Amino acid sequence: MYEGAVQNLVDELGRLPGVGPKSAQRIAFHLLSAEEADVKRLANALVEIKERVRFCSVCGNVSEESECAICRDERRDGSVICVVEESKDVVAIERTREFRGRYHVLGGSISPIEGVGPDDLRVKELMSRLSDGEVTELILATDPNLEGEATATYIARTVKPMGVKVTRPASGLPVGGDLEYADEVTLGRAFEGRRSVEF
Amino acid sequence: MYEGAVQNLVDELGRLPGVGPKSAQRIAFHLLSAEEADVKRLANALVEIKERVRFCSVCGNVSEESECAICRDERRDGSVICVVEESKDVVAIERTREFRGRYHVLGGSISPIEGVGPDDLRVKELMSRLSDGEVTELILATDPNLEGEATATYIARTVKPMGVKVTRPASGLPVGGDLEYADEVTLGRAFEGRRSVEF
Repeated sequence: MYEGAVQNLVDELGRLPGVGPKSAQRIAFHLLSAEEADVKRLANALVEIKERVRFCSVCGNVSEESECAICRDERRDGSVICVVEESKDVVAIERTREFRGRYHVLGGSISPIEGVGPDDLRVKELMSRLSDGEVTELILATDPNLEGEATATYIARTVKPMGVKVTRPASGLPVGGDLEYADEVTLGRAFEGRRSVEF
Repeated sequence: MYEGAVQNLVDELGRLPGVGPKSAQRIAFHLLSAEEADVKRLANALVEIKERVRFCSVCGNVSEESECAICRDERRDGSVICVVEESKDVVAIERTREFRGRYHVLGGSISPIEGVGPDDLRVKELMSRLSDGEVTELILATDPNLEGEATATYIARTVKPMGVKVTRPASGLPVGGDLEYADEVTLGRAFEGRRSVEF
């Protein structure tokens, strides 16, 4: 509908996740009337993410060094590894300030539908991290959905011979939510995992 | 929360209209795992929009030439000018295939709250287009909201001495909608503008 460069940008923006044709058009016109310096900054940020960001050689988290900031931090507890699907899960867990161990980013979850098997994830790297015997607990914090559960089960089984303790974060009611709106599975898990209360 | 380049991209994306922090993070991670060529194409599209796109010297529409494709098209009817706020309005009207005249893009609407007065819009340029007497009708297709109505009223008054016919698109019920969901103003306008039906 537009002339060359405008339509081209609308098309490119429309390929981003969660950006529909209307949003793409809105963003393109916003950029058209934005300062040239602001647009250049965004373009540079895009180029830089490809040039500078790589993945941590130890845990697979995004990093600008060969090892990420968490793996480099000597104060972190090396005896606990929390296994997550993506780098954004690391950020979510770090935000809680509850966990002081180390991470292992798988790079996805097992999904036969999308053709992702265990060999496409960083499972072998996890195994070699466990081989030196320093790690005593493995927290499998994959997503609480079908693929995440399958991935956790797969890793738990693979790890079993190594004798490391394997845990999984509790399923239950989200804090601040309404009990009546919880789905049956979540509510069932919440009852199953109920705790005694001390007064 | 992230290291340098990733956080930088998340911040830049978060400044775009309609992109919240969660979407920005989602897009950034999508781009992190996308092909480098795809990311470069988006970055280039951004740079190009600033380098190649300018505004039509006649009507103010976005264009890569000094005159836009519609102004260059000799088959368009030069006796009718449709005044709109933005280039995207031109696209919306073109999509109807109902209008074969020319356009004039104001570049916004009069909004005292945002500090936009008539002098910030391309009103003077519109006046000079009307001065040669070729134009017989001016369609004021500004948005049907407070600012758009104010802008239409202002232009209608300014243009009055020139004796050109001034019209405004009909207000009424959206086609395909439900009457019961129409707001009072729209429904009132729809009744006010009712037409006799021929059988």
